[in-house]
Amino acid sequence: MKAEIISIGTELLLGEITDTNAPFLAAELPALGIDLHWISQVGDNQARLVKVLKRAWQRSDLILTTGGLGPTADDITREAIAEVLEERLKGDPALERELREFFARLAREMPLTNLKQATIIPAAQAIPNPSGTAPGWWVERDERIIVAMPGPPGEMQPMWHEAVLPRLRHRTGGTIIVSKTLKTFGLAEARVAEMVAPQLSSANPTLGVYAKADGIHLRLTAKAQSQEEAEAMIAQVEARLNQVLGKHIWGAGDDTLEAVVGRWLLERKLSLAVMESYTGGLLAATVSGCPEAAPYFKGGLVTGSDEARVACGVDYRLIAEHGGEGAEIAPAMAEAARSRLGAAVGVGITGVDEPGTVAAKTFGTYHIGVVTGRQRRLVTGSYPGDRARVRRWAVAAALFELSKVLAD
Amino acid sequence: MKAEIISIGTELLLGEITDTNAPFLAAELPALGIDLHWISQVGDNQARLVKVLKRAWQRSDLILTTGGLGPTADDITREAIAEVLEERLKGDPALERELREFFARLAREMPLTNLKQATIIPAAQAIPNPSGTAPGWWVERDERIIVAMPGPPGEMQPMWHEAVLPRLRHRTGGTIIVSKTLKTFGLAEARVAEMVAPQLSSANPTLGVYAKADGIHLRLTAKAQSQEEAEAMIAQVEARLNQVLGKHIWGAGDDTLEAVVGRWLLERKLSLAVMESYTGGLLAATVSGCPEAAPYFKGGLVTGSDEARVACGVDYRLIAEHGGEGAEIAPAMAEAARSRLGAAVGVGITGVDEPGTVAAKTFGTYHIGVVTGRQRRLVTGSYPGDRARVRRWAVAAALFELSKVLAD
Repeated sequence: MKAEIISIGTELLLGEITDTNAPFLAAELPALGIDLHWISQVGDNQARLVKVLKRAWQRSDLILTTGGLGPTADDITREAIAEVLEERLKGDPALERELREFFARLAREMPLTNLKQATIIPAAQAIPNPSGTAPGWWVERDERIIVAMPGPPGEMQPMWHEAVLPRLRHRTGGTIIVSKTLKTFGLAEARVAEMVAPQLSSANPTLGVYAKADGIHLRLTAKAQSQEEAEAMIAQVEARLNQVLGKHIWGAGDDTLEAVVGRWLLERKLSLAVMESYTGGLLAATVSGCPEAAPYFKGGLVTGSDEARVACGVDYRLIAEHGGEGAEIAPAMAEAARSRLGAAVGVGITGVDEPGTVAAKTFGTYHIGVVTGRQRRLVTGSYPGDRARVRRWAVAAALFELSKVLAD
Repeated sequence: MKAEIISIGTELLLGEITDTNAPFLAAELPALGIDLHWISQVGDNQARLVKVLKRAWQRSDLILTTGGLGPTADDITREAIAEVLEERLKGDPALERELREFFARLAREMPLTNLKQATIIPAAQAIPNPSGTAPGWWVERDERIIVAMPGPPGEMQPMWHEAVLPRLRHRTGGTIIVSKTLKTFGLAEARVAEMVAPQLSSANPTLGVYAKADGIHLRLTAKAQSQEEAEAMIAQVEARLNQVLGKHIWGAGDDTLEAVVGRWLLERKLSLAVMESYTGGLLAATVSGCPEAAPYFKGGLVTGSDEARVACGVDYRLIAEHGGEGAEIAPAMAEAARSRLGAAVGVGITGVDEPGTVAAKTFGTYHIGVVTGRQRRLVTGSYPGDRARVRRWAVAAALFELSKVLAD
């Protein structure tokens, strides 16, 4: 099945918003065995949208559109589809009733312009929109399908998951495609590629290696005649990757480093406190960003100077000896955070992130200390890139180090 | 001039990366008076790219492409343009020399595959790429222009600014378009729209109102025959908006709240310390994210519990009386951060961000305290949305409040 995605909205052509719907849908299609050949963005202009839709109708089996289903005059997706298929738009009493009920639930009066959203053509069936007023359309004729979905991702994605995806899965049948992502830290991309070279050349499952902000990801994709078969194929390669990459693998799928660390802290009934200079609060913000962090995250101390480090409990003699940005300071910061905030585990980050204060070659060097009642670890690293990137990387490195300590 | 953007790369069609080049370029074109009619994404497939380019060559005056200029076999932009224009690709000795020099500077051997990047067609001129090995192409024939640029934004954007934009500006001449964005905080979008209603209906300059993560932005766009004339038109409306919106305007253009606050702290030779619960370190991370923050940012204290608040200097009797998430605690936290870290200005944030701990209707309420030697302010607010959004909003609210205190 050959597919095409059309994203509709003048704001896309003015560069005011970035089209995230097309990449979202594009990432969903391989698992359905659907080949995506074309993506385009078009403004709220009926003549141009009709041109794009006509061409798509000629060359693609499945056309996914997002946007242009709102209630105002510049929402022209319904009109354009009707024009391409030469069908008449008619008000649908059931859709109108649902629309009126939606507004009644909000205790708001329905503007008359919204009635436009209750119109439909004979070839189309409405797709319910639980999150908004714009129903989607499933249009089917001449062995072609158009699925028209609303533009806001908060409406489009639930509609996709609840109504469109199951229907397409039923339609494509046959081949099942299953993917799984493994996440690693602490190895360079080229090194990972080298270590998994035999798997990289496999045709099924395929393996892709990607550099991300939290390390190197490996994506396995298997094609088979059943879900079980595909999963078994993935499990087999995954076992091999686990042998090869070992402790560098910290998670899979939607895992984040902070969620993995949080889960382990909760399981082990341990609490955490941090002290950070180099990352300026980003480690605390990342850890506390987990909705479940309250029970284990005691807090953080962000120290911008030696005075602040001393005020937060680091021994001034140690700073006098090594400098506030020296490697030895990181475990001392971890220890101070731990005792000051009464936590079982402490993490400290320091380092030189100021250009100009040191020779260029040490710019970006960070030191991470992880201290528990029984362990005391120090790692030093560096990362190329701008300040924001280096800070994010140091946070990932600290969380990875913490995960290793918790695993022990 | 009618323009079209084509983004090239199979990873775009697999949803592995989001196309940020098209929105970047789209946002640049209005100021040149160039109308963008089409955007599309196509994979690394020469037959399909040729189809897209042929159609673009028929309907558009200016075609901007990104991607497909690399050294490997799947980089096919050069080949596709040559096919569409029916011209022959030939090695260019000057380009080859530059390429060899690029590798020599890196002290690396040049792989032979890179020679592909030194080929060109008669209708094209090479555009230098200071950041990578792929030169761009400026192709001009039959009153049409194709500009082919590399895909990595770090290479594309410098090439655009340094070589492509000046050349296009020279070409479009005539009408000048100037835009300016004003940034406000503390007013709802509908309220801003109401207050600037007379300006909203103006045809030149036009005014757009946009809700963003740091408040409501107003974008003014003026068309005129000269830069001076356009700027004068903007200045006139801006003066009126300043009267209407007053202290709600905190910045313009590329300003961020943290940079504005940082500038004012530096000017007034004041230092800052923060204590935060609700935002879990995000305020410290945002403030310290400014590269110039070291001189004024003393540090932050992230307190996840009442024990941590007390350990960081908040009076336990106050917490016993009001609860750690009560409004009265925010100025006390600001005061404690100030004295603990020895700063002139303190900011405290607390509030209830745990669903389930309180009645649903108070979820998301935050309290912000700003304390200096002479002032003590408290504001309370709330914001709808998920946890990450609410936290970002509270950080913006705190920085805005701080900016008002500094302005006094």
